[in-house]
Parts: sequence; C-alpha cells; structure tokens
Amino acid sequence: MECWSFPPRYDDAYTPPPDQPYWFPERETMDPAERDELILGRLREVCAYALERSPFYRAKWGDFRPEDLQSFADFERLPVIKKDELRADQAEHPPFGSYTCIEPEDVVRVHGTSGTTGRPTAFGIGRDDWRAIANAHARIMWSMGIRPSDTVFIGSVFSLYMGSWATLSGTERLGAAAFPFGAGVAGQSQRAVNWMAQMKPDAFYGTPSYALRLAEIAAEEGLDPRDFGIRILFFSGEPGASIPSIRARIEELYGGKVFDCGSMAEMTPWMNLGESSAQAGMLCWQDVVYTEVCNPETNRRLPFGSEGTPVYTHLERTSQPMIRLQSGDLTRWESGPTPCGRTYPVLPRGIYGRIDDMFTIRGENVYPAAIDEVLTALPDYGGEHRILISREETMDKLAVRAEHTAEADAEAFRAAAQEALRTTLGVSTAVVAVPPNTFERTEFKARRVVDERALFHETVGA
Amino acid sequence: MECWSFPPRYDDAYTPPPDQPYWFPERETMDPAERDELILGRLREVCAYALERSPFYRAKWGDFRPEDLQSFADFERLPVIKKDELRADQAEHPPFGSYTCIEPEDVVRVHGTSGTTGRPTAFGIGRDDWRAIANAHARIMWSMGIRPSDTVFIGSVFSLYMGSWATLSGTERLGAAAFPFGAGVAGQSQRAVNWMAQMKPDAFYGTPSYALRLAEIAAEEGLDPRDFGIRILFFSGEPGASIPSIRARIEELYGGKVFDCGSMAEMTPWMNLGESSAQAGMLCWQDVVYTEVCNPETNRRLPFGSEGTPVYTHLERTSQPMIRLQSGDLTRWESGPTPCGRTYPVLPRGIYGRIDDMFTIRGENVYPAAIDEVLTALPDYGGEHRILISREETMDKLAVRAEHTAEADAEAFRAAAQEALRTTLGVSTAVVAVPPNTFERTEFKARRVVDERALFHETVGA
Repeated sequence: MECWSFPPRYDDAYTPPPDQPYWFPERETMDPAERDELILGRLREVCAYALERSPFYRAKWGDFRPEDLQSFADFERLPVIKKDELRADQAEHPPFGSYTCIEPEDVVRVHGTSGTTGRPTAFGIGRDDWRAIANAHARIMWSMGIRPSDTVFIGSVFSLYMGSWATLSGTERLGAAAFPFGAGVAGQSQRAVNWMAQMKPDAFYGTPSYALRLAEIAAEEGLDPRDFGIRILFFSGEPGASIPSIRARIEELYGGKVFDCGSMAEMTPWMNLGESSAQAGMLCWQDVVYTEVCNPETNRRLPFGSEGTPVYTHLERTSQPMIRLQSGDLTRWESGPTPCGRTYPVLPRGIYGRIDDMFTIRGENVYPAAIDEVLTALPDYGGEHRILISREETMDKLAVRAEHTAEADAEAFRAAAQEALRTTLGVSTAVVAVPPNTFERTEFKARRVVDERALFHETVGA
Repeated sequence: MECWSFPPRYDDAYTPPPDQPYWFPERETMDPAERDELILGRLREVCAYALERSPFYRAKWGDFRPEDLQSFADFERLPVIKKDELRADQAEHPPFGSYTCIEPEDVVRVHGTSGTTGRPTAFGIGRDDWRAIANAHARIMWSMGIRPSDTVFIGSVFSLYMGSWATLSGTERLGAAAFPFGAGVAGQSQRAVNWMAQMKPDAFYGTPSYALRLAEIAAEEGLDPRDFGIRILFFSGEPGASIPSIRARIEELYGGKVFDCGSMAEMTPWMNLGESSAQAGMLCWQDVVYTEVCNPETNRRLPFGSEGTPVYTHLERTSQPMIRLQSGDLTRWESGPTPCGRTYPVLPRGIYGRIDDMFTIRGENVYPAAIDEVLTALPDYGGEHRILISREETMDKLAVRAEHTAEADAEAFRAAAQEALRTTLGVSTAVVAVPPNTFERTEFKARRVVDERALFHETVGA
C-alpha cells in the first residue's frame, strides 16, 4: 500500500494528478478483507508501541500482549477508554497525561478541550504527528473534490477548537490556498460575508449552524451567498451536514455541495470520518483510524447494518495514541463500497446523536437532531428553535418553540410543525410558533435542549 | 552570507545550536558597510523582478531602470508607496492588485486588513514566501531567546490580524511548541489565564494592552501571572512594549522579559523590526526588509540620530513585494551595534507614534503614547484612560480622564497626574480622576483619543 508504515512516513511533496479522484488509489479501493488483514498487523504494532511507552496502557491492559492479537475479536476484548479516564489521568500526570508516548520537548502543537464539562484536557502533538494529520486531512479533502487551485475559507474559531486547525493543516498540505478567517469575534460575521463576496472562495469550512447564520447575515448585507461561488461546503462539529433537510437548505442557499466529516478532537485526524464526492455518507477511513461501531454496553463490534457507538483506534498517531476510545456518539454503519469506488465502511446518516443526548419521552427515544430535521424541512420554518422537556406529575411533556418566517401564517405553521413532529417522533409535541429571530444564533455548535426533568427529580427527590 | 539569495532559498531543516545567540552569525554581525553593499545589489534584483512582473511598478516608476541603482541615494529617488495606492490598485485589479508578482493559483495564504479605514486590502502570499516569512520570524524570535524546547502561547486573535499567524509560522519553523490560543471571543480571557496557569508556557505573544488586561483577569481568578513561569513576552500591534513604564509594569506583573517587534502587515515578515535579547530597542533587520528612516515630506533617508518615518522595502518577498512603502509611523534611529553584537541600525524607543496620530495643542506636538507612558509610571494609576481634545473658541484644550486604583486618594492622583503630564508634554492638561474599571478594556489595540476639533471645524466651517 502507498506509504503504509508505523510510525507514518509520508512524502510531503506528493500530490496526485488533479484529475485523479483518489489520493492513494490502492489504499482507498482495495479489497476490504485484505485491508483488514493489514490493519490487524498494524494494531499489533500500535499496541506494542503504546505498551512500551505508556504507563496508562500498561495499567489498563494488565497481562495483554500484542502478539495475542490474532483476530479483531481478540482486539474487541481490550477495554474501551472513556473521556473521564483521560481527564483523570491528565490531572494526575500533567501536562499531557501518562498516555502520552513522546517526550514533552517533542511536542510542537498544544491544543485542548473547552472544558465545558469539567477540567479541560490538553492535546500535545508531535512534529511527525502533525505532518501525518495534515496528510490525512489533505487526502480526505481531496476525496471531496478540493484541489490545489482552490481557495478554502475557514469560517470557524481558531482557538481550542481542533476543527479549524486541522482543516488549515490539510489545506496547506493539499497545496490549496487557505483563507483562515475564523469566527466568534464581534462583527466578524458581517466581515466574513463581505470577504467571501470579494474573494470568491471555492470551499467553505465551519459548522452547519454557522453557515445558515452567515446566509442570514448575507441577506441583511444585501448579498446572495450563491454569488460567493462556493463549490464545496464541508462541515463538522454538529450532525447537521448529514441531516437531509439541513443539507438541502445549505445547498440551496449557497449553490454548492455539502459534505460531512469529523469524529472527535482526541482522534485527530478527526476527518477519519469523512464524506467523499459520492455524497453517500461519511466513510470510515479505516487505514487512518480504525473504527468499530459497537454495542454501547458490551463494546463489541456490531455487524454492518447495526446502530451503535463508534469506538476508535489511531493507526497513525505517536504522541497521544487512542486505542479503543469510546465516542459515545450514535450512528449506523454499512459495508462499502460507495459509488466513489472506495471500499471503506460508511455511515449513511452520519453521526445523528449521542448515547447521552437521546432522551426518552413516554418510552420513545427522541434525538434532538430528528427535531431539527423535521423543522428544517418545513417551508415556513424561520431557522431556530428550542426544545423543552418537562414533567407534570409523572407525565413527560415535550414542547418545541419554533420560529416561523416573516411571511408565514403562524397558526398554520404551528399546526403543520406539530403534526410533522408527532408523525416522525411518535410522541405528541406541543409546538409554539414564535416570530423570526426570537432565538440567538450561534457561530459554533447549537445548543437547543432544556431538560427540566432533572430539576424535577431533584425537587421531588425522585 | 548564510542563505543569501533572491528569491530566498532557506534550508528548512537548519536550526542553530541552542547556545548560539545568532541564527545566522555572519549576516547578523557583519560590517554594516559590507552589508549595505550587498543590500544595494539585492535592491537591483528586487526592482528588476518587480518591473518584469508588475504593471503597478512599471506605471509608478516611468523610465527607471534597475541598473541605474548605483547608490542608496539613487534608490531614495524612487517614489514611496502609500497605503491608499494599494487599496485603489486592488479595487481596480482584484483580488490581489497589479503589484502582485505571482499567479493567483500560486497563492497559498490569504489574509487581509481589517478595513476599518476603507475598503479592506487582501494579502495573497505564495508558498515560497510563506516559508521565507517563517524563517525570518524564527530567526528573530531566536534572537529574543526563544528555543526549540519552549512553548509559545499566542494570545492574539487568529483572523485577519497578521501578527498571530506569522508568529505561529515562526514558532513552527523554530521548532518550539505552539499553543495558538487566540483572543477576542467571549470568556476567552478567563480561559487564557487558566490555561497559562496549567500549561506554564515559556513565551507569550499578544498586544501590550491585552497582557495588562490578562493580568487583571488573572487577579480576579485568584491567579498570579508570575506563577505562569513565562520567561519571554513579545509584543506587536501597539507602541506599548517600547514605552519604559509599560514595559516595566508588564515585566513586574509577569516576572518575564518584554520584547517589542513589528512593523506593518503589508511588510510581513513584520518582525523585520524586532528586539533582541539585549533589550536595546527594535533592530532593523536590514537583510530581511531594508528600512530607511526618512523625512516624511521628502522621503529621503535621514542620518542616524534623526526622527522620521520608516520606509520599507522587501528583500525576501516574491508575491506582493513592497518597494519603498511609507509606513507613516514615527521613530528615531541610531546606528548599531547593539550590546547583543548585531550590527543592524536600532530604534531605541521603538515606534512611538504616527505622523497622523500626533496632535498639536497650542503649538506643542503631543503623542498619545507619551500620555500613556506618563500615566503608567504613576503608582496610583488604575490602568485605563481616555484623551479628549476639544476647542473652545480658538483655544485647544486637552483633557484626560484617568482611572485611579481602588486604594488611591482620587484627588491626590488627579493632581499628580496633571502635574506629570504638564511637565512631560509641555502643555497644561485637565485631568479628571475616575474610579477603577470605568473604561472598557481591549483584547487588541487600545483606542483612546477623541478629537472633537474635527467636529468643531465642520460646525464652524473652518
């Protein structure tokens, strides 16, 4: 296979001919069984590397020996890592944790989590890792159709959020022009649409929520996003780009094609889940990060066609290699090949929820993304909504406050939304129609759910 | 000289031994007359390159021929470029202007001005340029004492502002660890001080105003910036780091050494003005960008010891080379060598004003930076102030509203400030003492002057 080694050794001067759809034709289109055989060998190498260098893995794995790995079933017996473990280990072994397999002085990039759910964890990435990350991202962006002659406008914040930085590294490696504009600063959205109108980038990266927000702002500025001339819009950070109604809305507003990508910051190169030009769902680029979609209870791999949570293993990271990191995300996977000819497994609906953001209303499992999808498909939907889950006595109640457009009949919209949600979710929902621009827009990831039942539980001691 | 060519061809694998003070010993310490001879030859090459590729320069220079350049006096006869010309040319020749000497498809980075004073201008930077910029910045950061084992915390916004990006490129090239944290997003300052407390970076980059602001926020969070362990703080974007009282304040608060650097985004590598470990003022790294401190009227070079405006010429840029760009800044220059052994000219007091931000009060020239300096030196100064220039009848009036500290006697502070300003500026100033935290803090460049006389002129038609 092309440049297949651990640690990775990529030729930074390599770029495919522009009319070649694959960065690495052999690796991307090979017989999956043959690829699996090679991956199993690589897993032995990666586990041996981690055991040799990391007290974290030695403690976690007990008497496991890499040569015990004779099948993927053997590999599934290794315990999964949860994010809490990384946080605790890093607190005990600052700054980067005892799962770090390079010396602190070999770190060339420091990033971290936002710490919204506890002590932030730091990522310490080595020089060779950074090069391999850039290579992987260039390769996956290539599969979307981005080429060296393109300009990529990066409209997401450059701070802790890894998405922006890794997209920049991929753009640089691919040889395209990067316009790393950022987001999040006062007035920046207005400037963003004006710069896009002026510079006409070929590709846009950000979050789906923010792309929708920018389209609103463009309209306020008297600009039509279709005039930006963007051919490719690729997204991560939220499920939106894989939700058909949201994808269709963005494609209609911008006149470009939408691609979904992204797994977790810990798993960088996080485009290890990334959609190709076939637009058939996110591919699991198994030769970059080995993905198993697992039963969330047993953490054993599920057959294709099943719904479960992705468990990830780095095949190209030497600094903080993750071996069986449980994502907590929810997806369904299928076997390849996809119409682009790649033989990777695929997630046709992307990542559509989390084990823990799914809520249960009167016995029905409801995902916030499903509500988003239903509303966005309604022509009179004004672009934002909020979800309120409450409990009266012992009865769960689901309410949605949704904006209608300025032109819409509010009552008609309310009735249509209520009926559509009841049909799709299987639970009755109280919809309240509110005027356009009632809710704050986000430049990052939307947060729309308020679950008051926790409060209820505390109050009644349940 | 080490790697001296046009276009530049640097060895990206080169790093000096850590105990060597110079990146390029010969280039940095050579006889200045000998260096000047080489620069003159390089100017001929750069001018020939621009004439061959740029309609802008052909139109601007008429029948000038590069072989006419026999002395620096010949070079001084070339007309200066003003920023307005770049803006107008770029509007006429989008997206990058007819002073761009590479093909649009060879651009790998796009940045731009903020456009606060008119149509923004775009920077289109080629791959080889970006490498040369990284090399120059690594070299100048090396002279401050930054080494590959260090971690550099970049606390300035990553968007259009070139300072952040070029510092990142220099950090990467030097082989140090970059922690590109950014600034400007809600809540980010609190996160910044907590991350610095956790990660203990060796160097900090940002604006002086923001470093002072972060120290206040650290105190609010119960943290002492001295515990961050920062050895080197380097700044650009504002004159503050060269103002002795501000420098002393930052050094006291953080317990590290302060270095000033930076010229203009158009001149990137803008660290072409950059201070070395000797802390003797910003050096003019003449073999990167050739600087002439000129009479702002004639644009002829002034002798060492004079005050004037820097006029810059790129010696290492192939994409948008600037040849005699008038900065509009104000400085005084001296000949080298400085105590670090480098033989470059030096700006002992940095950039301390602009031709156009200097205001005249009753015949006295006053720089906002001078007021900043006087106030910061007062022990009871609360950290922010505003300057109001007004006119009553035909009499200019200068008023300063300045914060006192929580512990201070407001009236005593007012009297002390008024007396100190009168002594230094030579004009009487009405000081009003206001409580701490009256004025908004900035995360970027401070804007403190309100000149109401323009309004007055409009009103009375003067």
